[in-house]
Amino acid sequence: MSETNAYSDFLQAWGVVADLEHGSAVLQWDQETRMPAKGAAARGKILATLAGVRHDKMVSAELSDALHKAIESVATDSLEAKQLDKAKTQIDRETRIPSALAVALAEAQSAGLHAWQNARAEADFSMFQQELEELVHLNREKASALAGDGKPYDALLDLYEEGSTEADLKPMFAELGDVLAPMIKAVGASKPVDESPAKGHFDPAAQKSFCKMIAAKMGYDFEAGRLDKTTHPFCTTFGQGDVRITWRWQEDDIRPAMYGVMHEAGHGLYEQGLPTEWARTPLWAASGLGMHESQSRLWENMVGRSEAFWHWAMPHFQDSFPDKAGLTPEQMFPALNTCKPSLIRVEADEATYNLHVAVRFEVERLLFAGGVNVADLPELWDQTYQKLLGVRAESISDGVLQDIHWAMGAFGYFPTYTIGNLVCAQLFEQAQADLNDLESQISKGEFAPLLQWLREHVHQHGRRYSTQEMVQMATGKPLTAQPLLNHLTGLAERVYAIQSW
Amino acid sequence: MSETNAYSDFLQAWGVVADLEHGSAVLQWDQETRMPAKGAAARGKILATLAGVRHDKMVSAELSDALHKAIESVATDSLEAKQLDKAKTQIDRETRIPSALAVALAEAQSAGLHAWQNARAEADFSMFQQELEELVHLNREKASALAGDGKPYDALLDLYEEGSTEADLKPMFAELGDVLAPMIKAVGASKPVDESPAKGHFDPAAQKSFCKMIAAKMGYDFEAGRLDKTTHPFCTTFGQGDVRITWRWQEDDIRPAMYGVMHEAGHGLYEQGLPTEWARTPLWAASGLGMHESQSRLWENMVGRSEAFWHWAMPHFQDSFPDKAGLTPEQMFPALNTCKPSLIRVEADEATYNLHVAVRFEVERLLFAGGVNVADLPELWDQTYQKLLGVRAESISDGVLQDIHWAMGAFGYFPTYTIGNLVCAQLFEQAQADLNDLESQISKGEFAPLLQWLREHVHQHGRRYSTQEMVQMATGKPLTAQPLLNHLTGLAERVYAIQSW
Repeated sequence: MSETNAYSDFLQAWGVVADLEHGSAVLQWDQETRMPAKGAAARGKILATLAGVRHDKMVSAELSDALHKAIESVATDSLEAKQLDKAKTQIDRETRIPSALAVALAEAQSAGLHAWQNARAEADFSMFQQELEELVHLNREKASALAGDGKPYDALLDLYEEGSTEADLKPMFAELGDVLAPMIKAVGASKPVDESPAKGHFDPAAQKSFCKMIAAKMGYDFEAGRLDKTTHPFCTTFGQGDVRITWRWQEDDIRPAMYGVMHEAGHGLYEQGLPTEWARTPLWAASGLGMHESQSRLWENMVGRSEAFWHWAMPHFQDSFPDKAGLTPEQMFPALNTCKPSLIRVEADEATYNLHVAVRFEVERLLFAGGVNVADLPELWDQTYQKLLGVRAESISDGVLQDIHWAMGAFGYFPTYTIGNLVCAQLFEQAQADLNDLESQISKGEFAPLLQWLREHVHQHGRRYSTQEMVQMATGKPLTAQPLLNHLTGLAERVYAIQSW
Repeated sequence: MSETNAYSDFLQAWGVVADLEHGSAVLQWDQETRMPAKGAAARGKILATLAGVRHDKMVSAELSDALHKAIESVATDSLEAKQLDKAKTQIDRETRIPSALAVALAEAQSAGLHAWQNARAEADFSMFQQELEELVHLNREKASALAGDGKPYDALLDLYEEGSTEADLKPMFAELGDVLAPMIKAVGASKPVDESPAKGHFDPAAQKSFCKMIAAKMGYDFEAGRLDKTTHPFCTTFGQGDVRITWRWQEDDIRPAMYGVMHEAGHGLYEQGLPTEWARTPLWAASGLGMHESQSRLWENMVGRSEAFWHWAMPHFQDSFPDKAGLTPEQMFPALNTCKPSLIRVEADEATYNLHVAVRFEVERLLFAGGVNVADLPELWDQTYQKLLGVRAESISDGVLQDIHWAMGAFGYFPTYTIGNLVCAQLFEQAQADLNDLESQISKGEFAPLLQWLREHVHQHGRRYSTQEMVQMATGKPLTAQPLLNHLTGLAERVYAIQSW
């Protein structure tokens, strides 16, 4: 067999794994958007079967053999070698987790999710404690299996954002906390912002057409995607040419729908911009969750919440919602850039959001360092919130029980949200420098140059480079917190008229 | 390993195959109802991958071994033995077709579908002839592989309706033709029916709620299903608790929507009525396409087109479409039971439909007997239409190019439509005898006793018995054409006031 064949044979086998993943994604999307209530049990079995078939393929001797033959057949440092290297990382990862542990994790996640939902509804940590202990126990095992000689928590962080480590994240969160915690305190002491421009009555059908118009204007291709309603918005990819987003709305506030759609469309643009010729290969994916989040946040926050954007958007907004006649972009701007300490991460504003994440990083870090037990988590959670945000939950449902992540067995995931914010600010700063008057383009609804910049510096690379590498290539600097801090302190100064704190 | 374990181990392995089939069904449903245009190529690859994985499982040594161990462990004539017997039939069938032939068939179907669409659009048989020759050639090979010592065409018929043979079907179609052909001729010479009661302007949203109301009243469970729009209506099953139907409508005619929904809901009731405890096992399926069609036709034709039904439905119809105030069930009835020779099968009425099927059976039969070549088909088709229906297509697009079935590689499929009509009439006749005044129940919208009768005599058996066996068990007689002929001649006599012909 020729060298070329060994490589294309491997890609062929890998394509089967990719198809199984994308097929499962369709089933999950349907589960969230269309499935009738009584179909849940059967659907769970189908998804488990597909996951099992995929796992078997991933850890099969056939795939390993094909990989090793392919590796021997390609030139070092070639694109082909990079493809195979990415595949190897994923295959190794999956192979390191013993089957028994994988099964135990799946069962613990299923039990955990169920227990968490009940515990949260009843505001009773004891209803979830045992399941969470099992999840932590199994995830410690998983982390050790993945880490080899490395640090267990780093192995979990690496799952969601390749190369991210506790040692790098700790000073980053410290820096954010040092600047943002006092700033948020100062904001809290100043006059609250008038949010009425973003509130009122917004007909859902009019919200939908307004939001779809914005997404299309951003460049999201509805012939390669669609928008549907779900409880929690998300973006999902079924392969080249089918990248879907979902949304929800509130009738009395335009922000959940509009910024939800811009956020998900930002994710969607990334996926729609992956290189066509890599479809079904290891590199046909986003670099990591942090880079993904940077794309959604960039469109949501840097573009959508800017005053410039509203110079373009306001007439369309007023066409859709005639009650808003007379409103100016200057009046709208503060309502979209509020800042106030709160208890719930998913409802937090752009600045405090990072402190919510910092709380979770701190708690997870200690949990995997071993000094903290599951029973200690409620108090540790509340204390850390008090320290960083100055608030304390009255109900444990708004405290340590608020997030689904741990119940789903996802530890090490939260930091990607803040990595995304950092990357977003640093990339946007660079795009402003590279593009000729980006603000003016945005104020005219000309988003194509910005999208083109993102396609060139991010989307076209797929998974070829890590987030850190792409940031370095695009901006000439390593990832730092400074651009985000500049952005957030600038906003606070403008919106709340605070000067120093 | 104990005897019980061998059996449950096999069912476990079979469940994987069932899950892969149901997973593919979800992907196909999404393709028809929701997929954006640009997702088609990637979706095709995912479906091919799932089909390949499923095929590999079906013909795997593991499944065969599990089957044989299970067969040795269960008592002859037990339900378990029946389960395994059904599985064996399917595994044997799939194993008999060499992989190279399966691949060639898949490719020929894909090429055939494409060529057929173009040929039909251009009304040019030569654009499809070569692809059809390849499809016929490969299906002859497939038929021989499946038939073993039996007759090739019978092996194809058996794929869609177990146990049906050319020798049984030939006299059946002859009997239908002998009665129906002259009857249809006589009808054609009589005064046409006024179809205006079924025509007018029908708002699509009002059509949807009216049709959904009827389906729910029939017993179709929307918590275990849903109704969506497609180009061609169908019913599809994703497992226990998720059986979906689709529809289409015409704004100027209530019949396509209403009878389409009653038809698909009839299919859906069958699937929703399969025994829960058999989910993911070989017997958790309909007996065959003929029995399936009997269920859809029964609700569509026997119930929905009856005058009794309209005594219940008319007030609801008039609520939904106030233009129809004053219309009586007696006026509506003829418009729903017209009979006239036509060229297009899918638009044909209840009586002539069977002759359309008879044409196709005759042509297929001769094609697989070997005396006819693909090049002869256009003329053979037109001659047979002339003989049975007295009409001849002006365009070949309305002639031999009208159906998708052969382009998809489905030979031996058409007769199931008429088998379904026969079964429908014979079962309904028996239900009338068994139930206390079924007509009066229908006229009050009381469909539960009829559904219960179908559940008991058909649905609860899954694939345990063949269609013929179930008809015998339910009616005490073998399947015959007489009940259908009684029904159709009775209708013609009443609607067209013809007495003899």
